[in-house]
Amino acid sequence: MAHHRNRRVILKTRATGLPVPELFDMVEDDAPEPGDGEVLINNIYVSADPGMKGWISTAKNYASVETGATMNSFGVGVVVESRNPDIAEGDYIVGRTGWQEYSIVAPEQGGFRKVDPADGPLSASLGVLGHSAITAYFGLLDVGRPNAGETVLVSTAAGSVGSAVGQFANIKGCRTVGIAGGPEKAALCREVFGYDVAIDYKATDDLAAALQEACPEGIDVYYDNVGGDTLDTVLGLMNQNGRVVICGTAATEAWVPPPTGLRFERHVLVNRLRIQGFILFDYQDRYEDALADIRQWFKEGKLNYREDIAEGLENAPAALAGLYEGRNRGRQLIRVRPDPTLS
Amino acid sequence: MAHHRNRRVILKTRATGLPVPELFDMVEDDAPEPGDGEVLINNIYVSADPGMKGWISTAKNYASVETGATMNSFGVGVVVESRNPDIAEGDYIVGRTGWQEYSIVAPEQGGFRKVDPADGPLSASLGVLGHSAITAYFGLLDVGRPNAGETVLVSTAAGSVGSAVGQFANIKGCRTVGIAGGPEKAALCREVFGYDVAIDYKATDDLAAALQEACPEGIDVYYDNVGGDTLDTVLGLMNQNGRVVICGTAATEAWVPPPTGLRFERHVLVNRLRIQGFILFDYQDRYEDALADIRQWFKEGKLNYREDIAEGLENAPAALAGLYEGRNRGRQLIRVRPDPTLS
Repeated sequence: MAHHRNRRVILKTRATGLPVPELFDMVEDDAPEPGDGEVLINNIYVSADPGMKGWISTAKNYASVETGATMNSFGVGVVVESRNPDIAEGDYIVGRTGWQEYSIVAPEQGGFRKVDPADGPLSASLGVLGHSAITAYFGLLDVGRPNAGETVLVSTAAGSVGSAVGQFANIKGCRTVGIAGGPEKAALCREVFGYDVAIDYKATDDLAAALQEACPEGIDVYYDNVGGDTLDTVLGLMNQNGRVVICGTAATEAWVPPPTGLRFERHVLVNRLRIQGFILFDYQDRYEDALADIRQWFKEGKLNYREDIAEGLENAPAALAGLYEGRNRGRQLIRVRPDPTLS
Repeated sequence: MAHHRNRRVILKTRATGLPVPELFDMVEDDAPEPGDGEVLINNIYVSADPGMKGWISTAKNYASVETGATMNSFGVGVVVESRNPDIAEGDYIVGRTGWQEYSIVAPEQGGFRKVDPADGPLSASLGVLGHSAITAYFGLLDVGRPNAGETVLVSTAAGSVGSAVGQFANIKGCRTVGIAGGPEKAALCREVFGYDVAIDYKATDDLAAALQEACPEGIDVYYDNVGGDTLDTVLGLMNQNGRVVICGTAATEAWVPPPTGLRFERHVLVNRLRIQGFILFDYQDRYEDALADIRQWFKEGKLNYREDIAEGLENAPAALAGLYEGRNRGRQLIRVRPDPTLS
């Protein structure tokens, strides 16, 4: 059995605000040995996700990372050692790898799945063919439940989740309106991701008026990745029986001390709204159902995507920080080693 | 055809805050004649409902009353003239009568139904055998969907809707916790309405701590009639996959200018909450389903209730104002004329 030195990024200090590179540290030690049923993978790409803000914060979260532990993340790697009869060396595996070069994974772990490089680029298995799209799929279709002809509004509409939401909503026959930050992202929404209208929120000082113009028949589903003032504004524009999918809270920098906003319950009552949160991990048993649809739409050329790939594990913390400044230009990944599927 | 002089309470001025008697005026004119299919009823009881705050406010509402119009309300009356072959003089009818002595009603109107005095007191047809209980029924069972063993928290727990929610939740095998204002109402919750625990919110300066003590296993369903600070506090104590039923917003006096509170979306996301509003009127097609269960439980002695009956139409505005001061001691009704079913 070969020994592998393993560089990994650990969480040094939990965050009270937005993630900054100083919260992390790089360490190097020996990669662990896989146990029975487990495999060791050499990671090729790992991800930086907006939700990580919550994972490393001092507040309660569904996926908290302890200080001193390897930073959690999704990743895709190639099997270098297998102690599982169903998995061969050379197989490609997506899992919750963490920000490190080598990870132990096993089929019974959340998010584990084999990837066939014939389905699309390996990097896409972490985005438009992976959990970004799966998040969008369940959030939109299972929680938001849009009907054809309804208006679906999406925040961070050019992001990896948002752009998938918009495209899925188009596939379902909805009118799609995106909110994005800056002219470049708004143009991406319109020209690449197929939104009927895109609003550059940085270029308007009256978001409510812009939304009313963009949504002449009101808003039936709001797929919300940001919360905050934008959510407050949208809640006043929802149609009767509207649904608000809470997928992220990117607009709020810190939850301690508790931030304030407009009271919301009157909108919920008068317009019979449903505001519902969800966590991708709760849908693990149904990932393959989602992926079957997603792969099909991808093959049919209905799903565009953009990636922004940082080079080297040491740049993962900066890539993460960049997400909250809107610096990324697509699904933010970190290349840990050369991608063997690219010639 | 007899002519009937009709005294009625009209809305003089729309409210920007809580309802006060000065917003209303009493007028007298001839009762209208029923048209084909319609009946004229002589009202016996009409209701004062917490939701009326919204109906008469300047803000958008699902049941707005125009200035100069008769105040909307529920009521029960006896048929004095019928132009409908299915309805006889002397029948008792519940409908949206408004605050007046005589009303024209018809079966196709919302809320219309015949009442059999053998089912219970006529006044109860506007409360525990009527729309208070129907509201509680659909809000709890259709929106909140509690499972046996779960903890159900109710605000204005001793009110006509709240007390029905608590008793329905008990029937469904839930642990029930009520929030009420004052020792008398808290005692009612425990001793008459069967709550496992009742919290007098006026007697605590740390509602969160009181709730944590009362709900050692967290809160699965919050049936909310008040909103405001109480809602903010409860949202931080909800269990994973918890449901918040928005039935009323009694705690907020005015919505103009827009009031503020704690941001809520992080709780919704992290705990996968569902916050959902509903309006009784949307369930009109299913009232009889609800009433079948409710009448059965009433017969079995499982539904206690309290009424507070003001004498005379002229006292309706004051009775309404009293609701928001917590002055009522049960379902607030107004007796318009003597109840012929009482000897």
